[in-house]
Amino acid sequence: MTIDTVIHGGMLVTPDSTFEGDLAVDDGTIVSVGTEQAMPDAEETIDASGLIVMPGVVDPHVHIDDHVSLDTYETATSAAALGGVTTLIDFAWQSYVSEDSPWDEEKPLRDGVERKKKNSDQAVIDFGLHGGILREDPDLFDELADLVDSGITSFKMYTTYEFGLSNGFIREVFERLRDLNAVGVAHTEDDSVCESLTSEFQAADRDDPTWLPAARPDYAEAMAADDIARLAQETGTKYYGIHTSCQKAAEALARYQDDGSLIRGETCTHYTTLTKDIYRELGSLPKIAPPIRTDDDNDAMFEYLQNGTLSVVSTDHVAQTRERKENSKWWEDPFGANGLQTSLPVFHDEAVNKRGLSYPFLVQVMCAKPAQTFGLPNKGTLEPGTDADIVLFDPNETYTISARHNASVADYTIYDGREVTGKVTRTYLRGELVASEGEIVGKPGYGKFVRRERPVWNED
Amino acid sequence: MTIDTVIHGGMLVTPDSTFEGDLAVDDGTIVSVGTEQAMPDAEETIDASGLIVMPGVVDPHVHIDDHVSLDTYETATSAAALGGVTTLIDFAWQSYVSEDSPWDEEKPLRDGVERKKKNSDQAVIDFGLHGGILREDPDLFDELADLVDSGITSFKMYTTYEFGLSNGFIREVFERLRDLNAVGVAHTEDDSVCESLTSEFQAADRDDPTWLPAARPDYAEAMAADDIARLAQETGTKYYGIHTSCQKAAEALARYQDDGSLIRGETCTHYTTLTKDIYRELGSLPKIAPPIRTDDDNDAMFEYLQNGTLSVVSTDHVAQTRERKENSKWWEDPFGANGLQTSLPVFHDEAVNKRGLSYPFLVQVMCAKPAQTFGLPNKGTLEPGTDADIVLFDPNETYTISARHNASVADYTIYDGREVTGKVTRTYLRGELVASEGEIVGKPGYGKFVRRERPVWNED
Amino acid sequence: MTIDTVIHGGMLVTPDSTFEGDLAVDDGTIVSVGTEQAMPDAEETIDASGLIVMPGVVDPHVHIDDHVSLDTYETATSAAALGGVTTLIDFAWQSYVSEDSPWDEEKPLRDGVERKKKNSDQAVIDFGLHGGILREDPDLFDELADLVDSGITSFKMYTTYEFGLSNGFIREVFERLRDLNAVGVAHTEDDSVCESLTSEFQAADRDDPTWLPAARPDYAEAMAADDIARLAQETGTKYYGIHTSCQKAAEALARYQDDGSLIRGETCTHYTTLTKDIYRELGSLPKIAPPIRTDDDNDAMFEYLQNGTLSVVSTDHVAQTRERKENSKWWEDPFGANGLQTSLPVFHDEAVNKRGLSYPFLVQVMCAKPAQTFGLPNKGTLEPGTDADIVLFDPNETYTISARHNASVADYTIYDGREVTGKVTRTYLRGELVASEGEIVGKPGYGKFVRRERPVWNED
Amino acid sequence: MTIDTVIHGGMLVTPDSTFEGDLAVDDGTIVSVGTEQAMPDAEETIDASGLIVMPGVVDPHVHIDDHVSLDTYETATSAAALGGVTTLIDFAWQSYVSEDSPWDEEKPLRDGVERKKKNSDQAVIDFGLHGGILREDPDLFDELADLVDSGITSFKMYTTYEFGLSNGFIREVFERLRDLNAVGVAHTEDDSVCESLTSEFQAADRDDPTWLPAARPDYAEAMAADDIARLAQETGTKYYGIHTSCQKAAEALARYQDDGSLIRGETCTHYTTLTKDIYRELGSLPKIAPPIRTDDDNDAMFEYLQNGTLSVVSTDHVAQTRERKENSKWWEDPFGANGLQTSLPVFHDEAVNKRGLSYPFLVQVMCAKPAQTFGLPNKGTLEPGTDADIVLFDPNETYTISARHNASVADYTIYDGREVTGKVTRTYLRGELVASEGEIVGKPGYGKFVRRERPVWNED
Ligand SMILES: [Zn+2]
Ligand SMILES: [Zn+2]
Ligand SMILES: [Zn+2]
Ligand SMILES: [Zn+2]
Ligand SMILES: [Zn+2]
Ligand SMILES: [Zn+2]
Ligand SMILES: [Zn+2]
Ligand SMILES: [Zn+2]
Repeated sequence: MTIDTVIHGGMLVTPDSTFEGDLAVDDGTIVSVGTEQAMPDAEETIDASGLIVMPGVVDPHVHIDDHVSLDTYETATSAAALGGVTTLIDFAWQSYVSEDSPWDEEKPLRDGVERKKKNSDQAVIDFGLHGGILREDPDLFDELADLVDSGITSFKMYTTYEFGLSNGFIREVFERLRDLNAVGVAHTEDDSVCESLTSEFQAADRDDPTWLPAARPDYAEAMAADDIARLAQETGTKYYGIHTSCQKAAEALARYQDDGSLIRGETCTHYTTLTKDIYRELGSLPKIAPPIRTDDDNDAMFEYLQNGTLSVVSTDHVAQTRERKENSKWWEDPFGANGLQTSLPVFHDEAVNKRGLSYPFLVQVMCAKPAQTFGLPNKGTLEPGTDADIVLFDPNETYTISARHNASVADYTIYDGREVTGKVTRTYLRGELVASEGEIVGKPGYGKFVRRERPVWNED
Repeated sequence: MTIDTVIHGGMLVTPDSTFEGDLAVDDGTIVSVGTEQAMPDAEETIDASGLIVMPGVVDPHVHIDDHVSLDTYETATSAAALGGVTTLIDFAWQSYVSEDSPWDEEKPLRDGVERKKKNSDQAVIDFGLHGGILREDPDLFDELADLVDSGITSFKMYTTYEFGLSNGFIREVFERLRDLNAVGVAHTEDDSVCESLTSEFQAADRDDPTWLPAARPDYAEAMAADDIARLAQETGTKYYGIHTSCQKAAEALARYQDDGSLIRGETCTHYTTLTKDIYRELGSLPKIAPPIRTDDDNDAMFEYLQNGTLSVVSTDHVAQTRERKENSKWWEDPFGANGLQTSLPVFHDEAVNKRGLSYPFLVQVMCAKPAQTFGLPNKGTLEPGTDADIVLFDPNETYTISARHNASVADYTIYDGREVTGKVTRTYLRGELVASEGEIVGKPGYGKFVRRERPVWNED
Repeated sequence: MTIDTVIHGGMLVTPDSTFEGDLAVDDGTIVSVGTEQAMPDAEETIDASGLIVMPGVVDPHVHIDDHVSLDTYETATSAAALGGVTTLIDFAWQSYVSEDSPWDEEKPLRDGVERKKKNSDQAVIDFGLHGGILREDPDLFDELADLVDSGITSFKMYTTYEFGLSNGFIREVFERLRDLNAVGVAHTEDDSVCESLTSEFQAADRDDPTWLPAARPDYAEAMAADDIARLAQETGTKYYGIHTSCQKAAEALARYQDDGSLIRGETCTHYTTLTKDIYRELGSLPKIAPPIRTDDDNDAMFEYLQNGTLSVVSTDHVAQTRERKENSKWWEDPFGANGLQTSLPVFHDEAVNKRGLSYPFLVQVMCAKPAQTFGLPNKGTLEPGTDADIVLFDPNETYTISARHNASVADYTIYDGREVTGKVTRTYLRGELVASEGEIVGKPGYGKFVRRERPVWNED
Repeated sequence: MTIDTVIHGGMLVTPDSTFEGDLAVDDGTIVSVGTEQAMPDAEETIDASGLIVMPGVVDPHVHIDDHVSLDTYETATSAAALGGVTTLIDFAWQSYVSEDSPWDEEKPLRDGVERKKKNSDQAVIDFGLHGGILREDPDLFDELADLVDSGITSFKMYTTYEFGLSNGFIREVFERLRDLNAVGVAHTEDDSVCESLTSEFQAADRDDPTWLPAARPDYAEAMAADDIARLAQETGTKYYGIHTSCQKAAEALARYQDDGSLIRGETCTHYTTLTKDIYRELGSLPKIAPPIRTDDDNDAMFEYLQNGTLSVVSTDHVAQTRERKENSKWWEDPFGANGLQTSLPVFHDEAVNKRGLSYPFLVQVMCAKPAQTFGLPNKGTLEPGTDADIVLFDPNETYTISARHNASVADYTIYDGREVTGKVTRTYLRGELVASEGEIVGKPGYGKFVRRERPVWNED
């Protein structure tokens, strides 16, 4: 029998190990991994000698085409494909009404889902959706079971911003999620502390973006991280703490991660590779929340990734433009920075080249664990039978990151000028080549919405 | 030279030790402690043989004549004197306006101080005042220095109820208190968690008071306790966490008490001696916040008192009446329970008789530490030169607690029917006998407002 | 091209996941894993439907043909093969001279290696050797580099028994092992505490074997475990703490396992499945050191295996006979119990069936981690390119353990009468069937000595 | 009535507080503390204005006239009196026989007691005795009850040196001490680790005394400290860990000090004020075990004194001479350094002047806690009824420490040349002036053996 493709002679990386070998793909699925002589005949043989052959990156924290991100599905997923990302999870938002909100009517969360499903028809890679809860509206509780059945098995909430929810309501949501075996996700910063400090800085004309980290301090993040992790523990809910930026917040998560824990955490590429000096260099372009912090916090992120308190590295990709970030005061600028196209090479360079961590570690935190955490059994692995989402990565090629190559609507990158060794050569999605040598070759629309399973953590 | 009084032959208790001896008082001041033959001649010699001679209790958490407590200064301080309390700290409230508030105008905190000073002219014992901050009004910051100068060197805030403050505003207050060397005090329960659970129980008609502990759970207390203690640590502010009721909240305080800590904590007599079964017995009469919890929490309070995480036992005395507590649903009943008259005998019986702790321990947590914590160098000790605030306590007399003897306006006691061994025989305030054998003999008005110092903790 | 064998239709288990598929073997090596249609043509196809297909068990703690164990290589490795074990690590002992020692001359450790290599020519499965250091003889230091080069990359010491070493000498050994990138291994019990308690029980005629656990208490184990782990941390040496039996000892290891730790730990099947009641049932037959402990310790072993403090489950197999264990006093009986033939089914039944843990967990602690810990990259995994050491395991077959089937010289089993579900059906070593349906079919002598690599832990 | 003496107008320091006042003494006992006007008539009034009036120092760790210390009772206690020490605890040794031992016969411990009682007839201050156990001889167990009855209520053991005991024997002693309500005391360093390092340094000719700290490293101390504290916890015995010199050892004690703990710890003045640089300056003169360590360890000692892990500061006074310390290699020099005469002024200067700690803290760790820990209710306090052991201390006088003033046989001081502010002016023992302005005025022989009580710790 003849199958579609054999990827030959690369260094295969699984979450456990690396070994030189071949990988066979048929009908969009990995059908075997092994030695050359054990491969079936194939229509096409791709030479991967000298390259890393790894699962496509699974990025569970991406903002596309919404109230905070300018990307369309086509631009964002193109950036993703170029960056070796083959699956992302975006957010379907519940609408809320306020002066600044993009909505003029409060509708059910399923409307947000419908909207995203409609607007995502030009996706180049696969994607899932988190439900995004922006109102304290108990009607939501009647929607949850159907949403979970439809593959939206995680729900995000905020403790800050005008659409932040109270701890009490989050507790109520958690109880429902627990009963549905779904995952709670939260952006955790103590809103009033950040607001009070921001006001203080506004009153003192501290309008330079270097003030941002002090306005949203590590302890404000840790306060909310601690509260929400405690609620997760008390209610027995699977909880995923996102974009952990600092030692104090990671410590708060760790506190509630006892044996058989239902608490997991994420950090982002930028919290492992940049320090707050970046605000001096790039002004508001890297304005995000939580802000970028210190060297010691970079180190702490790696410690907590290694000991398992944190298990995922994401991008929190948001597409903003230079123009929108050019207000005279940092607090007038919108939050967000793009990262889909650069996350794998930047994190690889830091983790593998600079810190001497292994490729299996890289594949754990960028592929296997995000997939396992969010109910994507066919993603993030080279296991036969799963989707042939594969990245060929040249570990030896050195290049300089520049926004000139951005596929995203975003016209800058916070890694501008950074030289990294290791480059995405080819990205395959379900066996099809979608990006090659820095060019998109996939057809918009080939990327599909993935119905996610209710995830099982630590055998629950 | 002849002095006023010698108290002869009792068992003197200091924070360190007990010894049989005499104590000489002149002009309201302790002038010596020693053996009989070393005493100066005295006008009067009081026989204390067989009795404990200890400093008057200093209760730093008492509510009198305000929006939550029905007692007048005369009734509350009479209860205090009968209970061996010679100094209490009440609250001077900032007014706030709401449908349910007792105020119709928002005035400065100093108006609340004036009001309390005026209404306290019938006090039987000495008293201080905490400032009570009930609004997020930055005008307050201009008042603080004067208030501290006038002897109001601690300020209480709430994280719950309609007059609760945000973490962000508490942070701002803390920064001012730190600069003034004053103490922050907070009632810590996560408001939204308590509200969400209460609403849930209301919706489910869980109107029996036995539901109260679950409606204001230990973890809600711990969440806020953790947040505020963290803010104290981050701002470098002296912080006193009140009415700690449970293991989880005490653990949260302990987390921020490293070496040279500026964080202290209090529990109350009822959290060391009662369990939530009391709601089955007495309905809403013991409805307080935080609620009374479990056996294990009782034990934890003693552990944390012994290891120093907690250092004070107070009453959180509030005078309510049976009538006001007789609504059909527990959530309609007001909070609060009285304790001034019973706290010393009840806690003594539990700590000394039942748990085998020492008299110096008793004097530490009820006299010396509250005085030291709140800037009262002349109170809470038998040291020569300090106020002759003295309790003669008969450790062998057994009696049954009953509300029939209440001096407070409150017409019930949550310890009703409890048999205790150990009874207050005589209470002296600045050398004068104010209560004797269960009767008030002091003149209303003899008790004075005490200007408190800025306290020094752990050599700051 | 036609390869040797395809194992078809089983449930393949890797350290990360399980999936239905096929596995191809050629020339003793796994050449691919994948779906049926991607398999090459094979001489033989083995039907594994309904069976678990897992890597052969790697047991790094086995005693064969030495001063404590009666088994020959043939008997021990036959038991192993029947139990699904395809690689074991035995000990090559340095001789020491004493009244009870089996040696009459003190020779270099390499003599012990030679002896084992000679006596192992009838091995049915593969095996490695730990060096066993029984004397405080600095001449040893000159041997170490050669021994490590020859594939003996770990060295065992005792803190107890007449051949126990002092902490000071262990420190000296550790410094050499660190420099050679080898692993220190230690049996940790405080000798003098065990001796003092044993003497006490002897004096009191407490000769019933139920006294054993109290004579070698958990704290004695924890004392030595703490000391040796501290020495490993201080010297920067890779250290593997063996046969951890209790909560206290595991806690001691955990104390020194900070981030980037060089400290790992092992427990044994019996410490996860038996309690000290077994001494009441079976007398001295389960007499081992450390002794079998409590229910709570069983639970703790699983907690520490799950959180990574412990990473391996071994047998500490020692072949003794009933006859040798039939002295009138337990202290006269020799130590040791056999386990090679029963470890996988017993631990599988406990971990997977009773505690709901996953097959990947089972493969981690019994196959992948022991192999990785001890420098055996071709063992313990289903990765293409590695040795085709494979177990077919029927997860549904229920049977009762009995010593009647023992291949070991040992004529009893401490699991006698235990009904377990899950049975080893076939065991392959480097592609050859060595045990099938409870019968040895491999040729004695096919098993080979494996030169182990210097292991890399946590990227060192 | 006229009493003997009033000490007038000083700053009295108790374990809790300081206050200006007078102190009356009659018949060797403190009969009152108070204000001037409350004092009885006295034969003599001593002006203490400008001076600190504190309890005499209680030093529970002193070596006199034995196998390690050259002082006679007269010389040692004279140094003590000049240093403000009014009670010390020396050791009565069990004899043991070895090449280097001073004994040629192994006798009961009571013989050592007799010897010390005989040789102490020229004592200038009061003293107690620890029993010192130097052999693993169970006959000792028959002596213990009588010794405890005779006021020897604590027993010291070593884990190092040729007279070190095994953990197993220490466990046996602990069980007896627990039953007798006595206290176990241990010098904790892992002997074999210190020996192995010392041998290594000997072999490498590292004969400069700056190698000492590395030869007896902090971790060797921590290993033994951890083991013995664990034995104390397991057996339920009161245990006092002596001369804690480092962070790691203090942490080991802390680990076993849970609530209701029976574990206490001591550090010495030199571990709080000197660093290992002293070996560069003074060669072997400060050779002691454990050795003097680092700045960070100094800081740690204060942290642990403040949080209560450690509760006592002693001297470990040993009288050696320059001559005996002048061997060419540090390992040939004897251990020990003298400190009785300098401990109070040196520790006062460091703790109060340099670190801003309070006088009550000083009195706690040097007077009250050692007295309470070792069953000396009449010592270490200014409480009426207790012994009038009083130090007048001038906090403002600055002087330079020099061995020229040594009353000890020792002809050097490790604090030589250190300028300190704060000087002992007068020392009273049971009301009698024993040292005044640097001169001994007491009669040798006035100091008496004190029968100590079985101490009660934390209400046991
Ligand atoms: Zn966010
Ligand atoms: Zn985000
Ligand atoms: Zn309150
Ligand atoms: Zn209150
Ligand atoms: Zn062993
Ligand atoms: Zn073994
Ligand atoms: Zn010593
Ligand atoms: Zn000593």
